Amino acid sequence: MSSRRRTGKKRERGRVFMYDLIIIGAGPAGLSAAVYGIRAGLALMVMEQTPMGGGQVVDTSEVDNYLGLPGINGFELGQKFRQHADALGVVFQNGKAVSIHDGGDRKIVETADGAKYEARALILAGGAVHAKLGVPGEETYRGRGVSYCATCDGAFFKKRDVAVIGGGDVAVEDAVYLAGLCRKVYVIHRRDSLRAAKSLQEKLFSCKNVEIVWDSTLQEIHGSDLVEGITIHHVKEDSERELAVEGVFIAVGMHPNTEAYRGTLACDGRGYIIAGEDCVTDRPGIFAAGDIRTKTLRQIVTAVSDGACAVASAEKYLSFEIQ
Amino acid sequence: MSSRRRTGKKRERGRVFMYDLIIIGAGPAGLSAAVYGIRAGLALMVMEQTPMGGGQVVDTSEVDNYLGLPGINGFELGQKFRQHADALGVVFQNGKAVSIHDGGDRKIVETADGAKYEARALILAGGAVHAKLGVPGEETYRGRGVSYCATCDGAFFKKRDVAVIGGGDVAVEDAVYLAGLCRKVYVIHRRDSLRAAKSLQEKLFSCKNVEIVWDSTLQEIHGSDLVEGITIHHVKEDSERELAVEGVFIAVGMHPNTEAYRGTLACDGRGYIIAGEDCVTDRPGIFAAGDIRTKTLRQIVTAVSDGACAVASAEKYLSFEIQ
Repeated sequence: MSSRRRTGKKRERGRVFMYDLIIIGAGPAGLSAAVYGIRAGLALMVMEQTPMGGGQVVDTSEVDNYLGLPGINGFELGQKFRQHADALGVVFQNGKAVSIHDGGDRKIVETADGAKYEARALILAGGAVHAKLGVPGEETYRGRGVSYCATCDGAFFKKRDVAVIGGGDVAVEDAVYLAGLCRKVYVIHRRDSLRAAKSLQEKLFSCKNVEIVWDSTLQEIHGSDLVEGITIHHVKEDSERELAVEGVFIAVGMHPNTEAYRGTLACDGRGYIIAGEDCVTDRPGIFAAGDIRTKTLRQIVTAVSDGACAVASAEKYLSFEIQ
Repeated sequence: MSSRRRTGKKRERGRVFMYDLIIIGAGPAGLSAAVYGIRAGLALMVMEQTPMGGGQVVDTSEVDNYLGLPGINGFELGQKFRQHADALGVVFQNGKAVSIHDGGDRKIVETADGAKYEARALILAGGAVHAKLGVPGEETYRGRGVSYCATCDGAFFKKRDVAVIGGGDVAVEDAVYLAGLCRKVYVIHRRDSLRAAKSLQEKLFSCKNVEIVWDSTLQEIHGSDLVEGITIHHVKEDSERELAVEGVFIAVGMHPNTEAYRGTLACDGRGYIIAGEDCVTDRPGIFAAGDIRTKTLRQIVTAVSDGACAVASAEKYLSFEIQ
């Protein structure tokens, strides 16, 4: 046996087990890391907050861009991911990580119920959540017309009328993207000017099938089984207007699940852990994978890829202390 | 319709069609780019060199680390990838790209048979190939004991005896990785010292289940249905030795398929196109995805992820001229 395996094996130290690797989060990034990690012979554990894990994907109605599994229901895809890890014997531990302590060779994860877990390396894969508007119909029609990702779901609304809610870079990029697919795109923005970069705005203004609805907020999303329309409120005139749309793309921001780490790891202004495609953070032995890290494209497959890259980096760290 | 779609639609200009995007290569990166691209409404074409495309994956016996599709045969996985693209109506064109010309808004791809294709943007996804030794048994036992990727296949040789051929960084990393999984690891190296970094060597020397066989070359791989052993040749003593191993990991280098691009795009010393995880090269509108670009981990899922990222970058370039 190599020395790594000898020192790394799950073993007792007081009442605390020492793992080679703890992965926090059981979404696509965490599960992929588990698959790569266990195939590499690491003694690892995956900590998940909800009973079945899965991340955002399990709440997605249809996923059509994860290569090899076309047109699959998000819940089913999440199950396949989980089954893959289960089949390899991955150990899951229920718990919400509330803090991590970096003791060099000995990293400690503390959970909400006071339990402590130790490992030589950590992969943080707790994801991010899309900001919600909290309007009537938003939850009801999620996945049935309401989407938080134009790249993921735009193709389902080809030649239909849709609305984008927001005025930042992502909202404008989404609107331009959708303008290339949909018949008509309304952009609903609560102010009389956009926050997005000028170059993005210029492109948006040049799209003939885009109508910007200024000074307006989304009040309600309605329909029968699927979305059929929205009610918007003009904040200056205090009036209502109905728009017949089949899709509502909400682009009002995203929040990374990094509250527990902000004191320990370098994060950017929006709270994402600063890490490149090798998932290496500013702390040796702590890696960030998936939506939680700074990156340009947050998709299922980019998260799954991160899981592999994070384990490759963790392997190097554990074997060679190369970061 | 947005202006992008109007100018970008496949249209005749003389006898040459103008695509929004041409993807060169039909492996995991190229097919994922095709799926993301067609879902984004781009008029695109995939150029493939072999009748069925698929890249290296179709020659792989078993793949167990592409999340969601555990323990799948490589050929079958390649077919699933292809079927996904086919189902979305992706157009394939048979041809071997021998040169590209960057005319700004108009990129031209020329094939071996003299045909020319035009697009506003290109994604280069032609992959890379592992260097072969050319010894008897290497081809016969490929996927039946012979592997070029320890990360991919190491787990299939748990508690078995294996040999690693090579003496560079990758060979030593592979040997240490395998030492954590296998019973015994022989490292066969033709010289009396390793080329690998000192820190890697130190780790290798500390692995108790590793035996380095100096001044030796692999002469033959033999077995029945699967690999059972190898014959090695001692170059100084001019003698032969038999080693009973079930796995042979050949780590003697990799060659990116970039011959056609080296004059046009910045490449590193080993010929990989210089590009980060956004797949952006030094030429606006030309993107590099998968094994062909500079990256640390070359895996199916990292290639599939690149396909998505390259399209996101191409989309921004086509819509906003943002690189």
